[in-house]
Amino acid sequence: MTSKTAVKLYYDVISPYSWVAFESLLRYQFVWPIEVFLKPFSLQGIRMLSGNKPPGTVKNKLIYMLNDLQRSNEFWNMNISAPKDFMEMIEHENSDNAMKLLLIIQKERPEKLEIASREFWKRIWSDGEPISRRSDFEKVLAASEIENPSKYIDRIDSSSAMTLLFQNTKAALDTGAFGAPWIIVNKDGEEHAFFGSDRLHLIAQLIGEKFTDGLVQYSKQ
Amino acid sequence: MTSKTAVKLYYDVISPYSWVAFESLLRYQFVWPIEVFLKPFSLQGIRMLSGNKPPGTVKNKLIYMLNDLQRSNEFWNMNISAPKDFMEMIEHENSDNAMKLLLIIQKERPEKLEIASREFWKRIWSDGEPISRRSDFEKVLAASEIENPSKYIDRIDSSSAMTLLFQNTKAALDTGAFGAPWIIVNKDGEEHAFFGSDRLHLIAQLIGEKFTDGLVQYSKQ
Repeated sequence: MTSKTAVKLYYDVISPYSWVAFESLLRYQFVWPIEVFLKPFSLQGIRMLSGNKPPGTVKNKLIYMLNDLQRSNEFWNMNISAPKDFMEMIEHENSDNAMKLLLIIQKERPEKLEIASREFWKRIWSDGEPISRRSDFEKVLAASEIENPSKYIDRIDSSSAMTLLFQNTKAALDTGAFGAPWIIVNKDGEEHAFFGSDRLHLIAQLIGEKFTDGLVQYSKQ
Repeated sequence: MTSKTAVKLYYDVISPYSWVAFESLLRYQFVWPIEVFLKPFSLQGIRMLSGNKPPGTVKNKLIYMLNDLQRSNEFWNMNISAPKDFMEMIEHENSDNAMKLLLIIQKERPEKLEIASREFWKRIWSDGEPISRRSDFEKVLAASEIENPSKYIDRIDSSSAMTLLFQNTKAALDTGAFGAPWIIVNKDGEEHAFFGSDRLHLIAQLIGEKFTDGLVQYSKQ
């Protein structure tokens, strides 16, 4: 039996702020008594089901987001680099298959989920490459040192993969999700939901800890 | 000549997150080498001119915001209490006259701007009272211990008050604003814009300081 606080991170690799939350929480596992449970889900599904719109409709928001991501890079020692046409990429690039692949990896090779997720983010959010074609999946699995990639890629269209994606998306929606990242902290049997990558000071407060800095010594890029 | 970093806070009392940023920055003046310049502006004007929509259109966002404000209360030792019909209030309550009154106060009684701003927030965001009628203004000025209230209230409709509101709103818009609070940090002659009440760790990083906690010892409520 563990005394660690369970923290569920619902994320989608199409979302750069999901990446920030992912690295942040994985690092804070070293200094806070938390255990992070990774929950790949579908941001597109969340948006459709909650009726939320992507942020790209207001020009000033877009400009701001690019600066804000750059500053997050510096704080967390990350390498997020949005392509110039990134709104178009986000709008047209569908990440549902990538998320299904990650769910298959989580089931079959759970120790590889972290690196495979990071390789997807690096692909789209550092290198500006697509993440929806078979060749993209092959490159991500190769970079993650996962052998027999076809074994996993071939199952993306299976109904079981679809079910896994639906289950996680539905679970997030049931706790009030309207975007990504979506974080659930289970404290004394009660669930506390946090949206975004910038609520670590509030999560710290909830669990009686301090949000100190970017813990760049644990950077994995 | 001062070596303090200039921080401009654009705020509107219709926005509870503006209140969080206001209290946060005023407290961090005690521990960071910053000087905060208060800039009352029009959130409605910013929304219209940037094409941004208020957050109330997605139900899950609303529910989340109420929880999030409650947690901010605890972190900052504040007393934000949204009325049950608060979206309706935000939609229908126009704060432009309140902001014009604050700009008149800033010009004539600058030492009273902080308390008068806080009294407006307490009125709408602690007590659920309107902030747009003459009687509201009288109560806010009385609570702020400002004598001869009519002297200031009578000037709300003047073109000079309108000009002040327009100037601040335009200045924020020119730096990319799309919502409130909007914070401009002037570092080595360069302007850095921050949106929201949750970027203190990034502001800290920019100026070489640390965001530590809610500094509740400086709470003024």
